[in-house]
Order: sequence, then structure tokens, then C-alpha cells
Amino acid sequence: MTKMTTLTPVRRALISVSDKTGIVEFAQALQQLGVEILSTGGTYKLLLDNQVPAVEVSDYTGFPEMMDGRVKTLHPKIHGGVLGRRGQDDAVMNEHGINPIDLVVVNLYPFAATVARDDCDLPMAIENIDIGGPTMVRSAAKNHAHVGIVVNSNDYARVLAELREQQGLADKTRFDLALKAFEHTAAYDGMIANYLGTIDQSAETLSVEQRHDFPRTFNSQFIKTQDMRYGENPHQKAAFYVEANPSEASIATATQLQGKELSYNNVADTDAALECVKSFSKPACVIVKHANPCGVAVVPEAEGGIRAAYDLAFATDTESAFGGIIAFNRELDADTAKAIVDRQFVEVIIAPKVSAEAATVVAAKKNVRLLACGQWDVERSPGLDYKRVNGGLLVQDRDNGMIDVSDLKVVTQRAPSEDEINDLVFAWKVAKFVKSNAIVYAKNRQTVGVGAGQMSRVNSARIAAIKAEHAGLAVEGAVMASDAFFPFRDGIDNAAQAGIKAIIQPGGSIRDDEVIAAADEAGIAMVFTGMRHFRH
Amino acid sequence: MTKMTTLTPVRRALISVSDKTGIVEFAQALQQLGVEILSTGGTYKLLLDNQVPAVEVSDYTGFPEMMDGRVKTLHPKIHGGVLGRRGQDDAVMNEHGINPIDLVVVNLYPFAATVARDDCDLPMAIENIDIGGPTMVRSAAKNHAHVGIVVNSNDYARVLAELREQQGLADKTRFDLALKAFEHTAAYDGMIANYLGTIDQSAETLSVEQRHDFPRTFNSQFIKTQDMRYGENPHQKAAFYVEANPSEASIATATQLQGKELSYNNVADTDAALECVKSFSKPACVIVKHANPCGVAVVPEAEGGIRAAYDLAFATDTESAFGGIIAFNRELDADTAKAIVDRQFVEVIIAPKVSAEAATVVAAKKNVRLLACGQWDVERSPGLDYKRVNGGLLVQDRDNGMIDVSDLKVVTQRAPSEDEINDLVFAWKVAKFVKSNAIVYAKNRQTVGVGAGQMSRVNSARIAAIKAEHAGLAVEGAVMASDAFFPFRDGIDNAAQAGIKAIIQPGGSIRDDEVIAAADEAGIAMVFTGMRHFRH
Repeated sequence: MTKMTTLTPVRRALISVSDKTGIVEFAQALQQLGVEILSTGGTYKLLLDNQVPAVEVSDYTGFPEMMDGRVKTLHPKIHGGVLGRRGQDDAVMNEHGINPIDLVVVNLYPFAATVARDDCDLPMAIENIDIGGPTMVRSAAKNHAHVGIVVNSNDYARVLAELREQQGLADKTRFDLALKAFEHTAAYDGMIANYLGTIDQSAETLSVEQRHDFPRTFNSQFIKTQDMRYGENPHQKAAFYVEANPSEASIATATQLQGKELSYNNVADTDAALECVKSFSKPACVIVKHANPCGVAVVPEAEGGIRAAYDLAFATDTESAFGGIIAFNRELDADTAKAIVDRQFVEVIIAPKVSAEAATVVAAKKNVRLLACGQWDVERSPGLDYKRVNGGLLVQDRDNGMIDVSDLKVVTQRAPSEDEINDLVFAWKVAKFVKSNAIVYAKNRQTVGVGAGQMSRVNSARIAAIKAEHAGLAVEGAVMASDAFFPFRDGIDNAAQAGIKAIIQPGGSIRDDEVIAAADEAGIAMVFTGMRHFRH
Repeated sequence: MTKMTTLTPVRRALISVSDKTGIVEFAQALQQLGVEILSTGGTYKLLLDNQVPAVEVSDYTGFPEMMDGRVKTLHPKIHGGVLGRRGQDDAVMNEHGINPIDLVVVNLYPFAATVARDDCDLPMAIENIDIGGPTMVRSAAKNHAHVGIVVNSNDYARVLAELREQQGLADKTRFDLALKAFEHTAAYDGMIANYLGTIDQSAETLSVEQRHDFPRTFNSQFIKTQDMRYGENPHQKAAFYVEANPSEASIATATQLQGKELSYNNVADTDAALECVKSFSKPACVIVKHANPCGVAVVPEAEGGIRAAYDLAFATDTESAFGGIIAFNRELDADTAKAIVDRQFVEVIIAPKVSAEAATVVAAKKNVRLLACGQWDVERSPGLDYKRVNGGLLVQDRDNGMIDVSDLKVVTQRAPSEDEINDLVFAWKVAKFVKSNAIVYAKNRQTVGVGAGQMSRVNSARIAAIKAEHAGLAVEGAVMASDAFFPFRDGIDNAAQAGIKAIIQPGGSIRDDEVIAAADEAGIAMVFTGMRHFRH
């Protein structure tokens, strides 16, 4: 049991902020509530300029600000005032002329912004590490039984409302603010450790010019958006976290418009479907099941757009599409929405936008999770991908690698036709999102067979063929994409038998010559991308 | 370019440590080098008791330690002495009687240890949040151009050696120590934010009894052990990180005895192989390719042990075993090592231990990565698993769920025989590590077909059958494990045709009745586990 008092009055506030959003108005309001204000440096000047009376910290401590501001607030009259336990330390506070500080309003200059500057060298980065600020934040957060700590301008209104309504801050408000404070300092020191941890210590001179790609310790902070009913399986507990500032429209930015709560597997599969559909510029549909695309199609607007793309994607594997996740790269319209809900059981539909009419159509199926994630840019933003192992973490660049037609190297006697090239590039983009070993058969920018997740490439090809057969889709005249090179010619021979006419693959096997010869023998056109897309 | 001086002398040290390992000896050595020592509280007493002269901080500042130690070092005479820029701030330091402090030796009481105590309530946790300590650590780390900061007793020897040899600390030493310092404070505030972030703020009273499973922000720190040549693909950069204290023998604790550097995919696959083989108590071998077990077998010691298990695991899928990762749950012996290197191309071999003879055998193949990870306990320790999505992170309990024979519920007219039960439990343990949808055929505790990573369960079953056929292994009389329930009876009908005699699966489909009827019609014995093992 905690022993907090219910409300604490605010007689004195210390204000020193880097982010000055709303600070003048907040300080004015505090002053009108009779709160005495202590302040430092730039914040103090800003308040004075706006006729908000404030006492400068150095006047209060009797100790000058020194060393260009390095030592301002690191004084017992400040920290005694913040850390003193009301009702317990009052005598010692009186004895030493320490006045209680009941509210601390401090936020830190974002270290990330400093080090992102082109002119930031190592001394500048280090000079921008705040010492006094985090100390005040942490002191106040520790003593949240008596003190309020505000690190975010978003909380000004809430603090003022409480002070006006009940003349003090409630226990839970102070606790919540203290938690935010420690989250703020944890993120801040994490950023510093990440940054300094990339400096190459083996270089002759330490400098920001000589850095490792990855820091010595990897410090990260994610923000919880959802406690989940369970994880990948019912006996695993789980939660979904997002980055503080997601860099592009994604599952992390998506708004759920209706439907049941997203499950762990929903989030994972929706991410896979959405990231795959983002690869295409023309209207596209991706259906994902168990982390793999089981149907993908692209159809130009004039030929039917996402409505037609959905039909084709569904047709690839109607069995797997049941209970799948469906992603689009265009606004979801009513016609497409109706086609889906009339035809199949669907777990999630996601699109950059959802028309009001489409939302109404989907509303007929209350359980369907309908998400709008916003529009993404053409270029994928960089980011980090993780793979958790027992006791450790693999960290890598997100696989944003993408080839275009000019990167393709024709290695066979026959060059692919323009239609074949279109299908090859399409199949390649799909293969990138299929679990390795991945083989994708495609025709007219529709997947006709997806061979996923096999321990040998030839088995993935077998599966793609089986799937095409089951779906009643002809492989004759289709193209094949392979996410990695063919180690042997058997993969090509099998493809030729199945009727494949063109192949896209990275190349790079020691037996490329045999593989190319196999393609030539069958009259297959083959291109090398020079880029592999393993995905496990 | 940095503007550090080459060496900084140490005239005065401030020592205040929670971890007192070696501190007396370190302080004695500093004193012998003519270093004046400032200290506080318990550390001060310990030094005095051991006849190490030290000045108490309050005597130096002229300000008493107050509030039960809450305010001790938060004083400009301390922080001015730590933060002052030598050669630049000397005048102001002199003016205010501030003596330079050139070495700060501070470490923090581990918050995790406090909150792990049975009697730790919220006020105790909060009282144990250190304010003065992190501030000294951060001040000294910021001013590492002039000051050394030691947060780990492991660094005492290194600091003393430099002081003895060159009468000062070098630039790079101070930088490295400063980085450690920020890593220390980042981890510390991350722990605090994680802990306070689990308190249920919607409870009537805030207390450690009412907590969420996952904190509001998820703060983590991993330590880099390897910069990798590349990630999952050559165009992705990557590094491998481990936990500060891995909870059990794992890829993170493994020592590499020989061979090429581990790649990203090596680490991921070795983890999969090792975690799977840890499921078995009798001698076992697991071969993994592309994140999936492609061959697993268990053989009692008297019947051949890991040597025989390797032969059987290899026989499941000789095609996929090529270039695979092989894990054992017993010491690798010379005989088994010889069987592997004579027979196949192998990327990694891992075992709890490796005999000297086995190491000699493997040495003939210089590139083979040979790892010893140490012995694990019977019980798996809890841990967290992550799944990265664009802009976010799914966090869940590691899948440590495991059934034993007493959990099995027989749902068919025929109950499985004892041999069938052994095979069912074996196949179930394998299926847990096969990517979903997973179907595993097994006989005599050998996998005979592994159907992995399919978007429909019936296709995984087809693949398992294809694989058994390719390997020339009879499915007749084998058992089948399915990582999740069968949605339709077709999976059972196909299995019956293939010759499957017993089935293990979670159960829980709305069509369980049909599925059970299908098994009964075929004379198949079927058990339900009540536990699912999706793994994507």
C-alpha cells in the first residue's frame, strides 16, 4: 500500500523548458493561481518578456549560474526543495532556508535533434547533454508523493484543470506524471548511449566521422498501444507497442474503424500484407495468411483497379484466403468492400483510406477489423528490423532493397518480352514478402502459385505448382520468381516442365552456368537481379 | 575533431558505490598514488574502517547530508568540481572554493534487485531510486574530456594501471568509461520506467499488487557482441546483441570453438535448432534449414545416443540437411563429429559441450562453425519474445508451454499405444518449432516428413507426405502432429490414406466432432493437447 496524501497544493513551481510550446500561457495561469515561479536561462527571459513574474534560480540559491550554464540548479536549495518529504523534512528545510518546490516543469533538448545537425561534431553533441535538467526531472519524479513533474506540454491543461478544480494535484496524477518523467529520462540516456556507442573507438581520433553502424549497446523504447488478450498462442501474454514517431504509414499508424480487437497474429499478418502492397504503385491487393502472401494482384485503374485486383488475388488460393488479411494500396471503395464481405470470411481489411460508403458496407459484418493507415510516400523510410533469439537480439536494416527494370541483367539467349518483364518485376516484389525459400509463379500480374517457407528451393517450386493446379490456374506462359539463387538446374528443369516462360532470381550460384544452360535449353528468358530477399 | 587533451591527472576522486567489490583496495591504491578521496555514507565508513583516509562530502561542501541521504552530493561544490572545464573554468572554481574532482567512482544500487524482493512495496521501490548517484555519473561522463567515471568494479585495474604507467587517464579511456556510464544510467532509468509502468493506474490504490503484465513503455538494452558482415541479405547491415545476463544456456551464451564468423541467418537458425533440441531429455539431434527443423530424432543412450540420432535426423531430408545447422543435447563426441563432417556440408554444429577429440575431428573442416553453449536446466526460464513490425513491436512471453503425457486427452474410440504415445509426444515437440501451419509425421522418434510454413493446413500435410516419399521413409504406421486444430476433416482423411495411425493436435475446432469421427472411421487414435503452438 502506498502512503500518499490525496492532494498536494502547489505553492512554488520551477520552470525550465527546452520545448517552449505553451509555456508562457501555462506560467501565467500558474501565477494567477498564486504559484511562485522559479526559472532559469532562456525560460526565465521569455517569462520576463511576457510580464510573468519569476525568480531566477541563482537569486534564490545565492549561488551564481556558472560554467556557461553547466551548473545552475545542482544546488541543495533546489533539490532539497524538490526532494524534501513534506511533514517529515520541514524542520531541516526551514533551518537551511529551503522552500518547497511543488511543481517542476522541465523538458530536455532532444539529443536526437542535436546529433542530426549537419554541423554536429562530437564536442557539440557532448556539450548538448543536459545534466541539470534530468536531475530535476528525476528528483521531482522520485518525490511524486509530494511534487508534480511535467515533462510534456500536452500535460499543461490537465495540471491546470486539477489545480483550478481541487486546488492541488491528485496522487494518481502525480504518479502518472512521474512515470512519464522516468520514461523521458530513460529515452534520453538511451539516445545518448546509442549515439556515443557508435563512435569507433579504434579510430586514431574519436570523431563523428568514424562510426560503427550499430552502437555498443542497443537501447530502445516503445510505447504500449494495446494489452492483448494473448500472444501468438493463447498461453502467451502479449502487448503491442509502437515507436514514438513512426516514420511512415504502417500498422503502427493505423486507425481501427470497426471490428474485434486486433490479435497478435492479426498485427503481424497485417504488417506483412501492408508492407507488401506498399511495393506497388498501381492498384494492388495482397491477401496474407500465416505471415505469407497467398494471393497478390495488380490491376491498372482503367482495367478495374483494386476491385479487380482483389478478385484475382482471391482466385490464387481461395482455400488460404479464408480468414485472411487483405491489404490495398488505394482507398477502399464500397464495391470492393462488398465483394469481400459477400464472398469470404476475412479477419482484417487495411487500406490507406476507407470511403464512408465502404465503411457502411463492412459494418454489416461487425467482427471484421477495418483499418485505415494513411497514405505512405513512394520511398520507403529506413528502419531497423529485429529477430529475437533466446538471450539475444539480431538487429538489421529493414529490407528496403528494391530493384527496378534497369537493374535486371538478361543472362539467357532469349530476353524477356515487355509483358514478361512486367510479370517478372511483379513476381519479384511478391517473392520478397514470401517466407524463404520462396517461389512465386505469376501471370498478368496475378500470382498463380506461391511456394513458401520450404527448407529446399525445389520443394517451394513443387508447392507453387500444386497451388496453381488446385486453383485451376494455368502455369503455361507464367513467370517464376525465386528469392535466392538456384543452387542446381533441377529448379529450372521443373519450371520448364510446368510451362514457365521467364524467370527472375538473384543469380550468384557457383552453378549459374548450368542453371542458365537449363533455361536456354527450354527457351526460357531469365534475368538476374543481383539482390537476394531472404525473409524468415 | 575533438579537442581532448591527451592525459588528465587525477588529483581528487569521489567514491560512492553500491557494489563494494574491490573498492577498499582500489581506494588504497588511489591514495598511494597521492589522490585525495571524497566519499559519502556507507562507502565513507568502509574506507575509514579500513584506514583509507577520506573526506566526507558534507565536510567539503559545508552543507549537511539531509533527508536521510536524499540530498548529499547535489551541491555546486561537487558538480562544479566534476563539470568544470579545466583551463577554462579555473577562475570561477577558485573564486567559489571548488576543487576539481578528476575521478568519479559511483555505481547504483540495482533497482531490479530492490523490486525483486518479496517485501518490496511501491514506497520501498521509490525510496530506492537513486538521484544523487546518476547525477554524479552523468556529470562526470559529460565532462569526460577532463574526468574519469568508473561505474563498474571491472574497470578498477585498468584505471590504476593507466595512472601508474602514465600518471593520468588517456582520452580514449575516459571516453570509453563515459559511454559505459551513459549505458549504466540508460539501463537504470529503463528499469525504473518498466517497473513503474506496470502499476495499474486504474486500480483504486496504486500498489505493486495490481500490475499489468507489460509496462506502458517497453525499455530495453542489449549488448553488442558482433558486428556482422551483413544481415538476412547482403544489402542489409546487421549486428548481434545479447542480454546483460542471459537466463539460460543459449546461442547468446555459446562459445565459438572454430570456424567462420557466424552470420545473421546462422544465429537465427542455430537458435531454432538449439531451442528445439532443448525440448528433449533423451539424446537428440535437430537439423535446421531456413528456420525450420528438417530432421529430428531421439535415440536412448543404450540404442546409440546422439550418433544414431544424427543418422536418423539426416535421413528425414538429406536434400535440406545440406548446409544445415545441427544441434545436440549431449556433449559432441568424436564419432558423431566424424559422421557429420564425412557426410555433409554443415554450417554450424552446436552442443552443450564438445569433447577435445570431437573438436580435433571438426578442425579438419576449417569453415565449420563449432559452438559449445553450456548445459541448460530441465526447466525453460521465462523470457520475452518480439516480433518487429514497421513502426512497432509485438512483445509476448516466450513460448515455454509444454504438455506431458498426463495432459493428453484421448478423444477417439481407440487410445494410442505406448509406442504411439512416445511418438506423438516426440512429434508434438518438433511441431512446436516448425513454422505454422506445421504438420510433422514421425515414427520411432524420428521425423519422417516435416510440412512447414503453409497458408493452409492441408498443404502442410501434403508436403509432409511428399517429403516422406522423397526420403523413402514409410508413413504407414507413423503418427502425425499438427501445431493447431484441424478446421475440417480432410486433413484426417488424407492422413488416414497416407497410413497415419495416431494424431496429436490441440483440438478446439467447431468441427471437432467431424474430425474425431473421421479418425474413428479410419481406426486412428487421436489425442488433444489443449495447447496450440503457432510459430511464424
